[in-house]
Amino acid sequence: MTTRREALGLFGTAAGAALLGSCFGTGAQADDGAKAAGFPWPYHKLDPDAVAERAYKGFLTGHCMYGSFYGIIGELADKYGAPYNSFPFMMMKIGAGGVADWASLCGALNGPALAISLLSSEPKPLVDELFNWYQIEPLPDYKPKQKVRVDITTKTVSHSPLCHASVSRWCEKANVKAFSLERDERCAWLTASCARKTVELLNAQADGAFKAAFPIPKEVQECRSCHDKGSALEDTRGKMECGTCHFELGTQHPIIERKKI
Amino acid sequence: MTTRREALGLFGTAAGAALLGSCFGTGAQADDGAKAAGFPWPYHKLDPDAVAERAYKGFLTGHCMYGSFYGIIGELADKYGAPYNSFPFMMMKIGAGGVADWASLCGALNGPALAISLLSSEPKPLVDELFNWYQIEPLPDYKPKQKVRVDITTKTVSHSPLCHASVSRWCEKANVKAFSLERDERCAWLTASCARKTVELLNAQADGAFKAAFPIPKEVQECRSCHDKGSALEDTRGKMECGTCHFELGTQHPIIERKKI
Repeated sequence: MTTRREALGLFGTAAGAALLGSCFGTGAQADDGAKAAGFPWPYHKLDPDAVAERAYKGFLTGHCMYGSFYGIIGELADKYGAPYNSFPFMMMKIGAGGVADWASLCGALNGPALAISLLSSEPKPLVDELFNWYQIEPLPDYKPKQKVRVDITTKTVSHSPLCHASVSRWCEKANVKAFSLERDERCAWLTASCARKTVELLNAQADGAFKAAFPIPKEVQECRSCHDKGSALEDTRGKMECGTCHFELGTQHPIIERKKI
Repeated sequence: MTTRREALGLFGTAAGAALLGSCFGTGAQADDGAKAAGFPWPYHKLDPDAVAERAYKGFLTGHCMYGSFYGIIGELADKYGAPYNSFPFMMMKIGAGGVADWASLCGALNGPALAISLLSSEPKPLVDELFNWYQIEPLPDYKPKQKVRVDITTKTVSHSPLCHASVSRWCEKANVKAFSLERDERCAWLTASCARKTVELLNAQADGAFKAAFPIPKEVQECRSCHDKGSALEDTRGKMECGTCHFELGTQHPIIERKKI
């Protein structure tokens, strides 16, 4: 077991260099030996606002991951029955608060990523678009039409797909506490926003009209030019905004001034 | 749209204070209006090693989230048929590389969290245990019995449930590139490790013998004492190791010396 002392040693003053100077990724795509009959499930175009309303309601029952996933697949289940209505929706409840309140991946992204994967034969460009949109767009951008619990006026840019950064930025700007109704309502609206955006993307792909509008941010591309596959270091893969955690790049890094940009 | 300049302004020199000084979380648990008949699916005790072997094989087909989820639910499907064999396993492939290579939540945790949620009426303590074990235990801790592609000897402590930190630490210690076979194999073994651990936890819970052995780290508890529900600030919730990103706490924070511990 490594101690906190060792952990903080590694991620201390030269933290940017330490983490950016190492590597990660899934490696080359495995061949698709797991292709199954009847997969993906067929997608029928949906009304984004209807999905958003269902996602909001779903949040009130089972939080962000459940709400966003049920908003999409539940709408298909209501309209088309099987196989959509066979899905054990309740399993998605564990995604609340970045999975079991660990504040890791936002449940309003985790649910839609799985919904896209279930419904699209080419899911990755849509997930990329959704996540890039999420980390750069002021959110929530959808107000439910049904009765809401409290009005929300604050929007923030998360600069991250992670629950912790996303919610932290919002709460700070809105000046509310983590366990407030306002924060909970913001996450409900965000769940509706993400489900709605997801269906817009799925609809576009179904029409053969999908085109990415939210590319990987320029600054992340700059990091990747030295750290991604085929680069000089080839030591990382990822699309999260680097500067959200790597605010100090360390004295060994060629762009130590980045933090002052 | 907020610029990187603004983002880095917020997360700059006083980054720790900025992020720790804000707030997040899922709020009070929603009442369980979404209870469904036949949920959770019944759990039958499984052989952890058999599950690990299936998870390893699954990784080779569909990567970490698919492998870890299929290792568990696929084993139940083979032994007991319905409802387990009705699950659209392929949807889990999107979780590879921290979801679509975003390097967020490790797929070898995302898959098991959903499997636990599908099989347990009290999933959260098991997910907490799995995640706490993952961020503090030297991993991978299981070598597949079947033929492996390359031998792996390096183990690392992730100090995070996130793909990026977990894999970065391992690659740095093993001194291999992100797109190497060694890194890919490490993730395959880790997928087996996580599926195996998950089944040990499910078995213990089924026996009424589950007892958490990996509590939230002391240092995280210390952070939570000022930032969690009921504390002076009550501005956060989460169980990821704080110091993995908050290596600089800022001059306004009472424990600015922490980074030197």
